[in-house]
This record gives sequence, structure tokens and C-alpha cells, in this order.
Amino acid sequence: MRYGIAVFPSKKVQDVANSYRKRYDPHYALIPPHITLKEPFDAEEDEIEEKIIPELKQIAKNTEPFSYGIYKVSSFSPVTNTIYLKVEPSEEIFDLNEKLHTGSLPDKKDFKFVPHITIAQKLSDDEFFDVYGSLSMNKFDIQDNIGRFQLLYQLENGAWSVYETFRLGEG
Amino acid sequence: MRYGIAVFPSKKVQDVANSYRKRYDPHYALIPPHITLKEPFDAEEDEIEEKIIPELKQIAKNTEPFSYGIYKVSSFSPVTNTIYLKVEPSEEIFDLNEKLHTGSLPDKKDFKFVPHITIAQKLSDDEFFDVYGSLSMNKFDIQDNIGRFQLLYQLENGAWSVYETFRLGEG
Repeated sequence: MRYGIAVFPSKKVQDVANSYRKRYDPHYALIPPHITLKEPFDAEEDEIEEKIIPELKQIAKNTEPFSYGIYKVSSFSPVTNTIYLKVEPSEEIFDLNEKLHTGSLPDKKDFKFVPHITIAQKLSDDEFFDVYGSLSMNKFDIQDNIGRFQLLYQLENGAWSVYETFRLGEG
Repeated sequence: MRYGIAVFPSKKVQDVANSYRKRYDPHYALIPPHITLKEPFDAEEDEIEEKIIPELKQIAKNTEPFSYGIYKVSSFSPVTNTIYLKVEPSEEIFDLNEKLHTGSLPDKKDFKFVPHITIAQKLSDDEFFDVYGSLSMNKFDIQDNIGRFQLLYQLENGAWSVYETFRLGEG
């Protein structure tokens, strides 16, 4: 099965993100707004239960909850036409991302870690310039907390279902 | 905020349910296939953190994982035109539903508990008779396990996001 690790931000942030995703993100229906902490990886359920979950518990236990800010949108253009709420980089979120690539956890990293919440993707070039031109004028002043992360798995229809929650500071 | 408690069945069951939901369930995009264990209730986040989550942990800890079977579809007609995969009733699932209505947990029960996984809803009468006539011929022979339940909250767009997972036998 295909697994991933993400943080679901608080309701207020998810509601803001969804107000854009509804129009601009074809993955709107597949998963709520999220910060991906680890790119999708394939694993057997035995391995998940016996090796990966115990390690994730340990990582959660050894990581204190932390806060983050969102102040603007940004984009991965020209690599892709993805537009996102930029999660202000912090030592805490980079540390957590690093820890999630240690031990038995797959260490594959195709991309440099850029913490973000996608709000638009798979736009045509014309749409992208139009939408990004408009969204990039928006300023945000959002403070939010990360107190947990979630292990998810992907269904046949592409949607993601939560397998387990890990509370920071607890495990 | 509005909270609910549900079980997400295994991937194989979710994939079966989604093959029908895609066509017949307008809530397809709002939540993965699930067994509702407790009807939605309103609560403040403080109350969730301080009272409800500790009780849910305790309930999970005192409940052993259990298996269930799915053998056929059934419907809530004539009350509503909802069609569902019938979760074969068992003492374990009724006990768990009962426990989730004790202590600080809201005890409101508008409906008798009928464990099920919705695969079609909000059909017109004509659609209902057509779709149910066809689906009710299907026989299933699915065995699945319940090893956890999830506390969810509802976003402004109606979608549900997982707040926390509780592992049966652990908490």
C-alpha cells in the first residue's frame, strides 16, 4: 500500500485553504488541506505495524508541539503550476521532516522540503498566471500550531484515509 | 465545532464501497467510506481536549479489537433512500457504540444504532428503486477487523478531517 505522512492544520486554516482549493485544486475531494511531511512511499502492512508505527511514536514523543505562521502564497512555478500557502520555515518543521527520514523510514527525498499547503494545482499556464497574479496580492496573518501528524494510506480512487494519529510530546 | 466518531474500514472495504459511492453518494468527496459510531455532536475544543479525548482513550484501552462481516447491502427505505453495506451486527460493535454514549460523551441518539457503510444516498425515488433493485442482488463475503476508531471534525465545506485516532486495546 501507498502511505504518506502529513499534518492537518487547524480548522481555520483548512477553511481558508478550501476556499481556494474548491475552485483551483482538482485534489480538493481526495484529501483535506494538509502539510506533507513525507512524500508517499510504498510499504507492506506488516512493516507499517511492526517497524514504522513504533518509530513514528518515538519521533512524536521526542518532538514538542510547535507553532508556525502563514503570511503569503507562493508557487513552484516554473517546475509546476502549483500555488500554495507558504508555511513560514522554522527549525522545528525542518527537524521533524528530517526525523521522518531516519531509521526504518524510507529516506527517499525527490524534492527539497518546502513546507506548504497546496491551494491550486494542475492549472494551465494561462490559468496559472491569472490565478497566481491575483492570489499573490493577498496577505495573511495566520498563526497556527502543529500538535500531531498523521499516517495516511491511499485508496484506489486516489483519496487518502487516515491510518493513525501521532501526538507530538506524547507518541 | 462539530465532531463525530467513526471507523474507517480496511482499504479493501473502502475500495469496494467507493466503487458504488462514486456514482451514488454525493458525500463521496466529503469523507472516506466509514462506519459511524456516534452521530455528530457540537463541542468546544477545550472540552474535547480535557474531557472527551481522555474518555475516548479509556474506552479504546478497555475495548479489544474485533472482526465483523459484510454479506449484503440493505437500505433505510422508506425513512431515507440510503443504501448501505450492512455491517453484520455483533455484541462488540453494539458495546462500543454504547460506551461512546457514556460519561462526558453526549448521549443523544436520534436513531437506533444500525452499523453500516453508506454507499448511496439522496437518490430520487426512481433512482433508489433502480439502484437498490440492482445492488440488493449482490452477495458479499467480506471479513474485516476493527482495530481503531477516529475522532473527526467537520470543515466549513462539509468535509470531515481526522482529529485523533484511538487504538483498541491501547488507547
